[in-house]
Formats: sequence, C-alpha cells, structure tokens
Amino acid sequence: MRSAYHDQLDQFDEALVHMTKLVNAAMIEATNALLDADLVAAESVIAGDEAIDAVAHDMEEQALQLVALQAPVATDLRVLLSGLRISASLERMGDLAVHVAKAARMRYPASAVPIELRSVITEMGDVAERIVRRTGEVLATRDIDAAIGLAVIDDDMDFLHRQLFHAVLSEDWQHGVEAAIDVTLVSRYYERFADHAVTIGKRVVHIVTGEPYSTAGVE
Amino acid sequence: MRSAYHDQLDQFDEALVHMTKLVNAAMIEATNALLDADLVAAESVIAGDEAIDAVAHDMEEQALQLVALQAPVATDLRVLLSGLRISASLERMGDLAVHVAKAARMRYPASAVPIELRSVITEMGDVAERIVRRTGEVLATRDIDAAIGLAVIDDDMDFLHRQLFHAVLSEDWQHGVEAAIDVTLVSRYYERFADHAVTIGKRVVHIVTGEPYSTAGVE
Repeated sequence: MRSAYHDQLDQFDEALVHMTKLVNAAMIEATNALLDADLVAAESVIAGDEAIDAVAHDMEEQALQLVALQAPVATDLRVLLSGLRISASLERMGDLAVHVAKAARMRYPASAVPIELRSVITEMGDVAERIVRRTGEVLATRDIDAAIGLAVIDDDMDFLHRQLFHAVLSEDWQHGVEAAIDVTLVSRYYERFADHAVTIGKRVVHIVTGEPYSTAGVE
Repeated sequence: MRSAYHDQLDQFDEALVHMTKLVNAAMIEATNALLDADLVAAESVIAGDEAIDAVAHDMEEQALQLVALQAPVATDLRVLLSGLRISASLERMGDLAVHVAKAARMRYPASAVPIELRSVITEMGDVAERIVRRTGEVLATRDIDAAIGLAVIDDDMDFLHRQLFHAVLSEDWQHGVEAAIDVTLVSRYYERFADHAVTIGKRVVHIVTGEPYSTAGVE
C-alpha cells in the first residue's frame, strides 16, 4: 500500500503537469490575441496569469511542509527541489505568454504583426504548443528520450526566430522601426518560452539519472 | 557556541553575497565591452559566466546535503529554499551580463551603441552596479527597508529603458532598424537585470517577515 506521503509526492508531480496545461492555454490564447488583434483574449491571458502564479506558490508551500513533516530521503528531496525549479520555469513561461498578450494589447486595434509575417508567428505558436505539450508528457512519464528530444523542437523555434530576424533586417522591410522592435521582442518571447521547456527537460534528466544539471544556454 | 550546522547556513548566505560580486563584475565588464567595442572584455564576460553557474550549482548541492543530514526546522528550510531561488535569480543576472557582452561581440569592431546614446547606456550600467551592490548588502544584512528600496533603484532603470525606447522610435532616429533592435534588446537586458534584483529583495522580505512572496512583475 502506498503511504499518504507518497500520494503527496505524486500530487506535486501532478501539479507540474497541470501547470503545463495552464501555460499552454495561455500561450495559445496569447498567439490568437496577437494574430487577431483580439483585446478580450489579451486581457484574459494577462488576468489569468495569477492562477499560474498561485499554483507555483502553493507548490512551494507544499514542498516546505513535506520536507518539514516527512524528512524525505535524499532522492525524494532532489525530486522536490527540482520540482520547485521546474515550477519556477513554468511560471516564467506563463509570464512570457503575458508579454505576448501585452504586445497585442499595446497595438490594439492595430495588429503588432505585419501581414506577411503572420504565417511565421502562427508557426511559432504551433511550436510553442508542441513543446509545452511534450513537456507535460515528459513530466508525467519521466521519459529521458522525450526530455532530450525537447531540444529538437527548440531548434524549430530557433529557426523561426532567425527567420523573423532576417525579415525585419532585410532591405525589403517596409514597416519601420516600431514594428521591427515589436516583432523582434515577440519573437524573443516565443524563443525563450521554448528555452524554458528545454531547461525543464534537463531537470527531468537530472532527476532520473542523477547526472549533473547543465544550465548552459538558459537565462 | 554556534554549531557546524549554523556555520553551514551562514556559508550559504555568504555564497549569495559572493555571487552578487561576481555578477556585478560581469555587468561592469559587459558595459565596458559594449561602450568601447572591446572584444577581449566581451569574451571575458562570456567565459566567466561558468564560474557564476558553478557557485549556483554548488549551493544547490549544499542545500540538498544540509536538508538531508540536518533536517532543518521550518524557518531554516524556508531560508534555504528562498536562498536557492535567490541563487537562481543571480545566475540569470549573470546570463544577462553575457547577453550584453554578446551584443557587443556581434557588432565588433563597430559599436552596438550609437554615440548619442552612450550616456544613457553608461547610466544604465551605473544603475545596474548600484542595484546589485545594494542587493549584496540586503543579502548580508537582511535589512527590510533596503530590500524594499531596491524597487526605487529599479524605477531609475525603467526610466532609462523608456528613454531609449523613445529615442529609437523618434522621427530623428538615423541609425536604421538593426541598431534600433540592438539598442532595444540591450536596454531590455539591463531592465531585467534590475527586475531580478527587485525579486531578490522580495524574497528577503519573505524570509524576514514570513509575508507571502509576490511574483508580480517578474518574468
């Protein structure tokens, strides 16, 4: 029979998976807000971030209680502390969805994205959805290959990020400095969103294998 | 007499203060690299980031050992977990110094900063130095007023950030899209650097007062 203590540890993992779903929903809505200049969607993402922050905060409290009351062994401790770091990464992914939503809100009723770049932003939204969905699976299964595979999805995001960079810097760019900055910043939000997923993958590898966690490339 | 255990807790705090010094040195050198188009300085910041990451990594290992071997009481646990979060913020501040250094390296031998904006970037560097130095003091003393005061220094940074934004978007801007993007991204790195200091201040307030930690405005 499993103990109440192990049930609590499982709940901790479930909370992380739940966060990936909240973050995924937020980024999907933020992308729609951006592409459709949809103010209601933008405001919804911005207001909804509190719920993601609240889950992260609750997890921190639960971890403290678990450690204080149960004195977990070294492995469980490592899982708990890594879980808090993962929760912090997911919280920041939620913040990046908010940044995208705010970019949409700032230009409303105009669109922050010139029409010829809509398809690239749409693709970035798709990649964001793919990587955070996979992150949820990685957290649920602790599948190392899938965790390492997050970096491959991140390569897709980096490719799109560079594509946007080239577009705003090309001689054909017709939209001026403000639109170039909007696009660059938004593109960076998506890129960092994917970076955080890669970081989470590395943390999961660390949990499973005990191999040292590498922070390379993470900000 | 103080126990070895409390000595270890103190060392944990000292490691955080040490990190503020490394981060401060990195950002000073990165600002110089940016203003003087100094490739050697830029490379030095980029290579030096490993040392900051290593301190953060060591702290995580130490925290795990402390918790596993000493079963600290609730208050000490809270301090340890908050310390890990603070260490993660400092690690990211180091990454932002690297981003500034990379912006300098990318444009070398040219400068990424048009001459009329040098003074604003210089001021941003000064504010960065001020806020991280004060952060070190806050970590050493746990002075709540000083911790809250970090937000006032951050206001100075936000003011400079807006000033650069206005400059690149003004009709007088003569330097094209690429320079506008360079300046905007660099400005954002400084702004986020200061944001992280504010987050650390909030964590210290949380450690001292037990008041809930607010994540508002942090990414």
